[in-house]
Parts: sequence; structure tokens; C-alpha cells
Amino acid sequence: MLDVCLLGTGGMMPLPFRFLTSLYLRYNGSVLLIDCGEGTQVALRKKGLSPYPIGAICFTHFHGDHISGLPGLLLSMGNAGRTEKLRLYGPRGLQRVVSMLRVVAPELPFEVECNEFAGETADFEVNGYHVHAFKVNHNVPCYGYAVSIDRLGKFSPERAKEEGIPLGFWNRLQHGETITDGDRVYTPEMVVGPARKGLKVTYVTDTRPTESMVENAKGADLFICEGMYGPVDVPPNFREKKHMLMSEACEIARDAGVPALWLTHFSPAEMHPQDHEEALRAIFPGTVVPKDGISTELNFIDE
Amino acid sequence: MLDVCLLGTGGMMPLPFRFLTSLYLRYNGSVLLIDCGEGTQVALRKKGLSPYPIGAICFTHFHGDHISGLPGLLLSMGNAGRTEKLRLYGPRGLQRVVSMLRVVAPELPFEVECNEFAGETADFEVNGYHVHAFKVNHNVPCYGYAVSIDRLGKFSPERAKEEGIPLGFWNRLQHGETITDGDRVYTPEMVVGPARKGLKVTYVTDTRPTESMVENAKGADLFICEGMYGPVDVPPNFREKKHMLMSEACEIARDAGVPALWLTHFSPAEMHPQDHEEALRAIFPGTVVPKDGISTELNFIDE
Repeated sequence: MLDVCLLGTGGMMPLPFRFLTSLYLRYNGSVLLIDCGEGTQVALRKKGLSPYPIGAICFTHFHGDHISGLPGLLLSMGNAGRTEKLRLYGPRGLQRVVSMLRVVAPELPFEVECNEFAGETADFEVNGYHVHAFKVNHNVPCYGYAVSIDRLGKFSPERAKEEGIPLGFWNRLQHGETITDGDRVYTPEMVVGPARKGLKVTYVTDTRPTESMVENAKGADLFICEGMYGPVDVPPNFREKKHMLMSEACEIARDAGVPALWLTHFSPAEMHPQDHEEALRAIFPGTVVPKDGISTELNFIDE
Repeated sequence: MLDVCLLGTGGMMPLPFRFLTSLYLRYNGSVLLIDCGEGTQVALRKKGLSPYPIGAICFTHFHGDHISGLPGLLLSMGNAGRTEKLRLYGPRGLQRVVSMLRVVAPELPFEVECNEFAGETADFEVNGYHVHAFKVNHNVPCYGYAVSIDRLGKFSPERAKEEGIPLGFWNRLQHGETITDGDRVYTPEMVVGPARKGLKVTYVTDTRPTESMVENAKGADLFICEGMYGPVDVPPNFREKKHMLMSEACEIARDAGVPALWLTHFSPAEMHPQDHEEALRAIFPGTVVPKDGISTELNFIDE
């Protein structure tokens, strides 16, 4: 089971009724956070979620509304007595940005590890999450994230018994290990079926539409995408500012064939984004224009 | 008239129901802010106050809960099209801290001027405010602020007419100018009475009790002071952490003879600080244990 919570839905600045966009994923007891603007630690608390299990934070880019909540979150983690390493991921420059923001959080009782990437894509694994970062089109280097939880092939106890494989080897075999036991060799293929469909969430914000978004949304169980502006009060320079219309996000969701889309990163001038939901569903029926704190559980399909 | 609003009453970390401690003063259309932790821009908006008239921000010290809201506030000011210079005041190191935090707000359409001070006290004037900074006792350099609005002496139109002083000179004389007009010399003393009692607010947080606090609270119309801990659940190391009990703040208010005390900077563990108000009034009757956004108007006494 993968818990998904969109802690905030705002862009540009936090508002009394709308936190900044941040995604909270929890799988197997470990939390992956994407983006951390001013107030994200408050949004966490408001949802009754602890910062304690956050093992990693990914940043799309280094504009203030996506990272300025980091020093406060680090301090709160430290005050709570955290000693476990925290892993941060983001575009080239992450180490520099984090070290500068830490001018107000210089001493922490835990290690903060910065992992930078560049280029069109990057892949890494952390705490059971497979993370694929892909470049999008903002006015600074900015990445979307496709986060996947793989699912192992189905283990067949019947086959294992037929082969006479000792019980102590079963788990290791399911995890892909080949085991030599005296003159016998046990391979995963003997007892494990093909890998099954896992879970995938794709998160993209602060960009113009790109082909990479469509490609990386494909196969996602949930696509979370910037829709900064609705059909009215659109600033004429939104393309130069490298932001998207809600309708553009719906078109990408439709083209990618995802089952569900959550829009986010609403303009502070957009007071009632939910008013547009019905019209947007004409473009893509799975559109949800959420409020802060929307959450869901994604489950493996029973086979 | 001096408008006073305590935007938040929290210490250490922002909470869903309690913003971090920040003081908003407005006099003659210009706002002086003291401290700006994570979420202060949200607290402003929640009170319906604009960041636009903020002409100056004073920082007590550079712990995250007192300054980490600065980059977000600067960005929001910039997004709103501000072009007026913003003046910042704080202990030595301000320029360095601000420039590091501005890694996420590097380009702004207005100038940010940093004014540092050191030593036991510092005095400066900004936008009609007289500000006296005085050192307190925290684990990093930290200052309290006594902010005063002076009041000019009373102008006597009767005396001015008797002296035959042209109307066009009256305002200049009231503001202390001596004017030579042909062979006549007009001095303020001819038409202006002695300076009258002005307004004064003293704000102190993040310190153990000091004699400087008592001295600088004297004569204040309102004393705003840290009272991080109530009578229960006090961490044994609060003295080493250089924080204060509510009761200690009340003793200082009593010793300074102020008319009113607002406590602030409550510990996140203190869920119901208001529960202690009645008991604290036994120490100092003018004690208020406020909630976020408490405000008042201070007016010159009619003479």
C-alpha cells in the first residue's frame, strides 16, 4: 500500500487557506516528500502526520515556494531528536542551496546528505522507492518525478515444495537471489513468476507542457500536475513565466491515459479553483481539482 | 496613533493554530516589523494586513523561528511589484544571513539594506520610529527593542499671532527649526511648549531575565515579552536554553511598572497558555496571555 497525500495545493506564496504544493508518499513505513515550501511542516501537522518517518525529500527546483520550508523542517526534526540520516535529491546546485539555507539551522543531530543530478533524466532508489527524475521546461532547471514501487513476482509455495527447497531460502529466492546449497542450485525462476504491476505516481510542477511529462505519466496510477491558472484571469505572460493552464494539464493526462489527475500549484489569485472542475472533466474525465490535504491509498492489484 | 498587532505567539516552530512570534507596528502609514519566522507572511494575510507598507524589519537574532520567513516575504513583496527600499536591522552578521537566505530570492525589484549593530545597545531612527536595541541574554547575540514615537511640544497659535509670526513658518517652528526672516529671528521656544509624552512599546524574546529588560520596559505603554513556559511541563534545562517562564516575565513587568504585558513565544508543548492567565495576574495584574493576532491602538494622551 502506498499512501499519497497532497499537503498543499498552492503556488508562489502560502495563503491562510492554502499551503504550498508538497507531496507526501508513505510506503512500508518510510516517507518520501517532494518539495517543501514555507509552511510545509505546518501542513504536515495539520494532517496529523509526523515529520519523523521522512527518509528522503526530492526537490523539483529551487524557487522559494518549493524549498524555503526546508530549514524550519530540519530544525523541527532536530528538536524532535532525530538521528537518522536524511537524504535530499534535486538538480545540480542542491548542496549549495541547502548549505546556504542552513545558515539558520547550522547544527543538527543528524546527517543531511545531498544528492544532485543533471541531464535529461536521473534514476535512483531510496527506501524502496524507485525514483525517475525527468527534465521539464521551467525558467530554471526543473524536474518532474515518477515514483514507482515495484512488485515482486508471485512466489509459488507449491513449486518450492515440489523442488524440495528448504523454507529458509524462500524469501531470498523471491527477492531474486540464486542460492547454492551443497551440490544443489536454486534459482528464482524455479519458484517466482514474472514481476507484477507495481504502483506509480507522477508529480510535475512549474513547467510548460512537455513530451517528457506525457511519457512519464504513462502507466501512473495517479498523475499530479500543475494547473496554475483556470480559464479566467490568466496573466498574458504565463507562457514566458513557464507555467501551465489547468486545461493543458488535463490534455496531458488524457494523452498519457492515466486513470486520475490531481491538479495543484494554483495561483494565489485563483480563489475558487474547484469551480472549474466540471468544465475540465470535459477534457479529461478523471480530473480532480483538490483542496489541501487530499489523500488516497494506492494498492497492488490482487492477481 | 500607533497600531500594534502581535501576529503570532509561538516559539520554536509554527503550528497549525499558532504562528511564530512577530510584532507588527504601524505609525503614520509606515510599518515596522520585528522578527519574521516561517509563516509570518501568512499571519499578515490572515489579519488582512498588507506587507506593502512594511518599511523596516528588525530581527532580535538569527534563530530560524525568528528569520526563516524572510525569503518568502521578500519574494511576495517582489511579486506585488514593490520598488521601495526595505531596511533590515539586526545584530552583527545580518548581511551574511540575509544574503545566504536570499539564495532562493536572489532577484528582487527593490533594494534590501542591511543595518548591523553590536555592543550593549544601539539606537536608530527609521520612518518616524525611534528604535533602541539592547542586548539580552540568549545563547547567540540577541537584542530586545524599545520602539518609541516622540511627540512634539504643543504649538501655541495665540503666542504665534502675538509674535506676528507668518503662518508659513508655524510648522517648521513646531518641528524645531529656527527661522531668520529679514532682521527677525523666530525660535521654537517662542511658540512651542516642552516635548510631550510619546508612545513606547518594548519587545523582548529569547532570553533569561536581565536588568536591561527592566530598564527598557520602564515607561512603555505596552511590554511584550517571552513567556515560553507556564507553571507545568517546564523542561529542566530551560535556563541553559536561555528561555523564560511566564512568571519571570510577569516579575519584570511588575518591576518596570508598565501598564500592560503581553506574553508570547509559547512552547509548542504548551497547548493552552491562556489557562495560566489568572494565576499570573497575581504576580502582575496587567498580564495578558494573548492569542495570535491580538491588536491594540496606542494613542497620545490628550493634554
